[in-house]
Amino acid sequence: MKRYDVAIVGSGPGGLNAAITAKTRNKDVIIFGRQDLSSKLVKAKHVNNYLGLFDMSGAEVAERFKQHLANMEIAITEERVTNILPAGSYFSLLTKEGIYEAKTLILATGVNFGELLPGEKELLGQGVSYCATCDAFLYKGKSAVVVGYTRQAEAEAEFLAETAEKVYYVPMYKGKDKDIVPELAHGIEVVMDKATGIEKNEAEAGSSAMKLLLENGEIQAHGIFVLRESTAVDVLVPGLAVDEAGKHVMVDRSMATNIPGCFAAGDLTGRPYQYIKAAGEGNVAALSAVAYLDTNK
Amino acid sequence: MKRYDVAIVGSGPGGLNAAITAKTRNKDVIIFGRQDLSSKLVKAKHVNNYLGLFDMSGAEVAERFKQHLANMEIAITEERVTNILPAGSYFSLLTKEGIYEAKTLILATGVNFGELLPGEKELLGQGVSYCATCDAFLYKGKSAVVVGYTRQAEAEAEFLAETAEKVYYVPMYKGKDKDIVPELAHGIEVVMDKATGIEKNEAEAGSSAMKLLLENGEIQAHGIFVLRESTAVDVLVPGLAVDEAGKHVMVDRSMATNIPGCFAAGDLTGRPYQYIKAAGEGNVAALSAVAYLDTNK
Repeated sequence: MKRYDVAIVGSGPGGLNAAITAKTRNKDVIIFGRQDLSSKLVKAKHVNNYLGLFDMSGAEVAERFKQHLANMEIAITEERVTNILPAGSYFSLLTKEGIYEAKTLILATGVNFGELLPGEKELLGQGVSYCATCDAFLYKGKSAVVVGYTRQAEAEAEFLAETAEKVYYVPMYKGKDKDIVPELAHGIEVVMDKATGIEKNEAEAGSSAMKLLLENGEIQAHGIFVLRESTAVDVLVPGLAVDEAGKHVMVDRSMATNIPGCFAAGDLTGRPYQYIKAAGEGNVAALSAVAYLDTNK
Repeated sequence: MKRYDVAIVGSGPGGLNAAITAKTRNKDVIIFGRQDLSSKLVKAKHVNNYLGLFDMSGAEVAERFKQHLANMEIAITEERVTNILPAGSYFSLLTKEGIYEAKTLILATGVNFGELLPGEKELLGQGVSYCATCDAFLYKGKSAVVVGYTRQAEAEAEFLAETAEKVYYVPMYKGKDKDIVPELAHGIEVVMDKATGIEKNEAEAGSSAMKLLLENGEIQAHGIFVLRESTAVDVLVPGLAVDEAGKHVMVDRSMATNIPGCFAAGDLTGRPYQYIKAAGEGNVAALSAVAYLDTNK
């Protein structure tokens, strides 16, 4: 399998500047994200404290960033990374579409992931999962609940329902999608309620059956899938040191995390949440990754 | 006296981004530096890892930075800051032209100052000085040596020679000025040699007479002026914590130094020496200064 020099997760200013810096240093780079870049960026009304770019809307800034990438022949791989495994001398990155390997890793996923449900983190891998397409085969003849935070989760629920005997779907949409009642195939039961927590179903001793707590009741099932736009970073990379609130990755001034070869940049490393701060950190993270590659040949 | 919210020393990307961020937050800002910005920047052949600016020469990037400042009505004060005194709730900044006061301070002077002469730091204020125009009055009827690292030092030596009885001038020029033999007024004796260190003249007990060591001999005088393009930052700001080599200011992730209200950004805080890293740090330093102002009203 091809092993990249640098894998970058995230296509905000931190990830993008990491990509161009690593490419400038002739490293073999793969960057996971969205070709239309960060939605946060595109939505910004006015960007004014990014030195060199002035009087521009977020969309115009995003356009310039895209031009810069095109100019340097950097393409963004549009796959969602669901799991990253540090494997000693390299990292394995899992997406729905496949597996990738890289000698160094730069995390620039932002802090968009929102609050976890009570019990979610504790029960992850013990009935709670983040990837319906990965784990569907475990649910033959069983029941599952999908808690969907974006409309993309609907397709995953339908895929799961092709295998599972019974699937419940709890939409947790915000913004313009807030009041949508999804129409789903394969007999999926849509429950219009708000998930408030996850518990083991102690009544069923010895089994791994679960309870999804709702504002107005609960759902019992063999497994619970929580599908967000992005995954909390310490869940994404097991063993990664984060701050007390679990929101920010701990980094030093070289943007190194506690895992050798793993660096971070942008909002993920803490406030202030600013484009130029993220871009600068992406640059530092990439140069630290380059130095790491040079000393660990 | 007018007291600014934020004083910024240095007009590289760190200082400039600090200025635009502080201005965006409606703070009253003064920035000291050069209207033609950092000479290092203008000389760069090609800038390619500053996200959003691509395929540009250093001069073109500098032009964009200037336009950004003009766009936000930020003017650079072209005075050299020779001394900064933390005064409890504010900072006093001394230039040849006057005194300024500011509630917070952002240092972005770069790391251009070169190596100190052996003995220089130890004897500062005890016969060694960095400002001939400030201290000239002390040398009436006495002798002094000026060690000049740039041609700007020649005018300072001539000013000093109007008061002092005898002035020696040792040019330490580099680059295109390397072999220039300055022609100076007021009977200044130009010594074409290389300064290698500074000592107290122990033979003259009880006096503060000094010895400038040269590759080919020495000069004895009452005082020694060392005039560089910029001043080592811990000399500029007494009490500032720097690293072991004395080259970089110690900062935390919020760009705070050990002195309350004093922040730093850019090359001065350590490697990598990169524009986008400096710009990002300028942004963070300015936001930290704004937060400091808010909590110390």
